[in-house]
Amino acid sequence: MRVIFNEEMQAVADDLDRMAKDVRTAINAAGTALLDLDVEAAQSVIDGDTEIDDLESSILDQCVRLLAKQSPVATDLRVVVSTMRLASTFERMGDLARHIAEAARRTYPQSALTDDAQDLFRSMQEFLTMTADRMVSMLADRDTTTAEQVIADDDRLDALHHQTFDLVLSDDWKGTRRELINVVLIGRFMERLGDHAVSAARRVVYIVSGFDPSKAPARDEGTDID
Amino acid sequence: MRVIFNEEMQAVADDLDRMAKDVRTAINAAGTALLDLDVEAAQSVIDGDTEIDDLESSILDQCVRLLAKQSPVATDLRVVVSTMRLASTFERMGDLARHIAEAARRTYPQSALTDDAQDLFRSMQEFLTMTADRMVSMLADRDTTTAEQVIADDDRLDALHHQTFDLVLSDDWKGTRRELINVVLIGRFMERLGDHAVSAARRVVYIVSGFDPSKAPARDEGTDID
Repeated sequence: MRVIFNEEMQAVADDLDRMAKDVRTAINAAGTALLDLDVEAAQSVIDGDTEIDDLESSILDQCVRLLAKQSPVATDLRVVVSTMRLASTFERMGDLARHIAEAARRTYPQSALTDDAQDLFRSMQEFLTMTADRMVSMLADRDTTTAEQVIADDDRLDALHHQTFDLVLSDDWKGTRRELINVVLIGRFMERLGDHAVSAARRVVYIVSGFDPSKAPARDEGTDID
Repeated sequence: MRVIFNEEMQAVADDLDRMAKDVRTAINAAGTALLDLDVEAAQSVIDGDTEIDDLESSILDQCVRLLAKQSPVATDLRVVVSTMRLASTFERMGDLARHIAEAARRTYPQSALTDDAQDLFRSMQEFLTMTADRMVSMLADRDTTTAEQVIADDDRLDALHHQTFDLVLSDDWKGTRRELINVVLIGRFMERLGDHAVSAARRVVYIVSGFDPSKAPARDEGTDID
């Protein structure tokens, strides 16, 4: 049984790694779509989201089958349960990347954002690119140090997100209402991507250590509406 | 074993029912806070969110323990796995209700919304109140008819949500930028509450029938940014 469990679990782990990589690709292409006005990148994110959704379904099915056939306990059980939750988190991250890509496609060949928002969103995107890299490697290597960095650094994204509100509420803001909506919603999508990365990082810590850091203070504490 | 499983599963089911009721209370109080400028209602949602979070943790722990000790298969396994996912969905709905309550508290004693947005948000709130009632009863009664109604009716909320964008983009809009942000974000939170209710309804259908309607076309297909 143990050998079969390990083999089957490895297949699921491979799918989960692939899902994390797909999400990273989506996050990066959404940023390219948004900031470099690349409509093909936007389309690739939108089209690619189906594969991410299918991977989630497949991973959940495999996990339920593993639970039924192998009745894992202790660490094995923790891995299976965490894998299901990670798959759902990644699925949601794919949706959020798609929303950003859709916003970029909608305004193409114009930018969805005002000129004075570009630098701020580029900083948020750089943060997310780094986070997506960390997410892939923490998962592949079961690396809690990297996971802890993802958790600790999220405040930086929250601070950038807060600046999106400062920007549109400032006296210097000259954007249209539509641009204001884009800044607010795309900013929110990016901040949520960060929150989900934190949630994924907590799952990795839980898999490795058995300690669930989600029982530490929760994310998404504030909406930063203003 | 079977008797123990049923007893323990009943305890988890009771907690899940309680969680659904807490979420309903939060949704209704958030609406009262937003539309009737009731700051005590707002505070009750914010304070009550901790209980919802704790219930999620407790349910997840109980489910993992059940999986380890009882190794359920077939329908029992489906119930346990779905219970975990429902608990996470309800936890997220609690967060969204809290965000609405926080927005109401922030602007108190003023409304977070413009006068001309009140009717629209009241309609969205009425929809969510109905949906929350349905959510509680579909769960308590394992009632797929009600669950199917939740799934089918979500388009109405999406249509109302779309009107939030029409409102702030219309020539008649006189609100401030801060009010525009509130309309857009609170509208988004409400729409997401509806999406999560749909996801919960799909879980209930899956528990009862074994058919997973989440493999039907996905929710949150568009962001309605404009």
